[in-house]
Amino acid sequence: MRFFSAALASALAAQKAASFTPSATFSGQRFSTTIKMAEKTALSQDELKKMVGYKAVDDYVKSGMVVGLGTGSTAYFAVERLGQKLESGELKDIVAIPTSVRTKEQAESLKIPLVTLDTHSKLDVAIDGADEVDPDLNLVKGGGGALLREKMVEVCAEKFIVIVDESKLCDGLGPGFPLPVEITPFCHEHTIRTIAALPSCAGCDAVLRMGSSSSNKPDGDEIAITDNGNYIVDLHFAEAIKDAPKMAMELKNTVGVVDHGLFCGMTTAVIIAGSDGISVKEAKVPVV
Amino acid sequence: MRFFSAALASALAAQKAASFTPSATFSGQRFSTTIKMAEKTALSQDELKKMVGYKAVDDYVKSGMVVGLGTGSTAYFAVERLGQKLESGELKDIVAIPTSVRTKEQAESLKIPLVTLDTHSKLDVAIDGADEVDPDLNLVKGGGGALLREKMVEVCAEKFIVIVDESKLCDGLGPGFPLPVEITPFCHEHTIRTIAALPSCAGCDAVLRMGSSSSNKPDGDEIAITDNGNYIVDLHFAEAIKDAPKMAMELKNTVGVVDHGLFCGMTTAVIIAGSDGISVKEAKVPVV
Repeated sequence: MRFFSAALASALAAQKAASFTPSATFSGQRFSTTIKMAEKTALSQDELKKMVGYKAVDDYVKSGMVVGLGTGSTAYFAVERLGQKLESGELKDIVAIPTSVRTKEQAESLKIPLVTLDTHSKLDVAIDGADEVDPDLNLVKGGGGALLREKMVEVCAEKFIVIVDESKLCDGLGPGFPLPVEITPFCHEHTIRTIAALPSCAGCDAVLRMGSSSSNKPDGDEIAITDNGNYIVDLHFAEAIKDAPKMAMELKNTVGVVDHGLFCGMTTAVIIAGSDGISVKEAKVPVV
Repeated sequence: MRFFSAALASALAAQKAASFTPSATFSGQRFSTTIKMAEKTALSQDELKKMVGYKAVDDYVKSGMVVGLGTGSTAYFAVERLGQKLESGELKDIVAIPTSVRTKEQAESLKIPLVTLDTHSKLDVAIDGADEVDPDLNLVKGGGGALLREKMVEVCAEKFIVIVDESKLCDGLGPGFPLPVEITPFCHEHTIRTIAALPSCAGCDAVLRMGSSSSNKPDGDEIAITDNGNYIVDLHFAEAIKDAPKMAMELKNTVGVVDHGLFCGMTTAVIIAGSDGISVKEAKVPVV
């Protein structure tokens, strides 16, 4: 685990090196942030997210690459940074694959050239946030309901860079964030029972997502429907998941399960924003 | 492999034992069939299908059971037989789960009480046809596009009885019938390439199903859409699939694949109609 004690300073330097001209407000925020760092006071959530989002692009994206762009409040800043570097000319010949309509719209507004998996099945790097990260860099994703499209893109990336603040780190997946599972609507009550009865899921509380598919907080009376026309069941665990890869296999092998929010063995590196600076944790075994 | 040299005679006896009264036409057909058997002339396809459909119900369905009803021209006769035996009173307290709208309608017309997996997750027996059967009783199903619902029902059955005529038997799955795979529409071209590149699928010709989802013969200009809102890609193999369970695992574990038409390790017994009579082949290892 590498630590970057002067992370903010270097990020600021990198930003200056680019011809991108930050707005006054933006510049002011960064300066204020640096002061806070020196004083070891807490950074705001948004400042932390920006740090890791920018660093992911600065460290892993090079000209000529096919880049997967994640969805969410942290990935937002990676997309922003990529747009800056393309506008400044520091990066060239990039094409990107967004994982959601929201990211697609942000990328378009920044004039980032977009393609899809239909034309580009191989990505050099994908950058996205996560809802939870365990010590083996297994992830829970899909709180926002886009787990299938995110997994489809990110599993095709040679390097998958995860950007989080330290609150997302955990000793074991599960208790900190419900695990979303995308299922087919046909006989979904049966499928939910089947999932809850899987050996690896013993004791979980399986809750059908209601209202908007993009939030696991019930906010409507209708069953939430994903972009793919499916349902989501959120698995609530009181105790840490013992064997995430095993659970991933059992879930995916269940008839009626389309996919799930466990991303195992996919992560190349996690860039973590903490109150002491940025740290990077790389996968022990190189991800192929 | 057990052979029933006097299969038709016993089937006729069983039918007489029931209080069901066959129509004159039906009775005449059976008699004619028996004659043909004695003369060792070929039976019609429909006569063969009726033989195995009836035998499946006669041998495996008992009062009080939850029964899965398959779809297709062979399963049709099993549903017919179940209706007869419920009407005659020979069978009581049966509830059935149909695997398609078509089967549901047939069962309703015969007054077979129906339930769904949502209320009954455990079936005593399921009876269905297959597109191909290999020596290990692995199946290819899904020519009619209902593979997901069929698998969802049949995987829950304590006994899964497959009824086919001998033309469906093969030394190796693949060349005789394209393997259907149900995939999510999002970036389906990418998913099709991914499937074709799986180690176990090497050399297959992956064809997106067009027109009606219930036939693997192209009969329209639009992409076929399943009952679950997905697409189907039919995998055409020139050579026999070497390891069907391995391919099943690789397919299901592909992001974007909802399910596939390989039914491995599910079959309890296959009832086969041949020109010499009916034979039954049971799974070597009891299916749990």
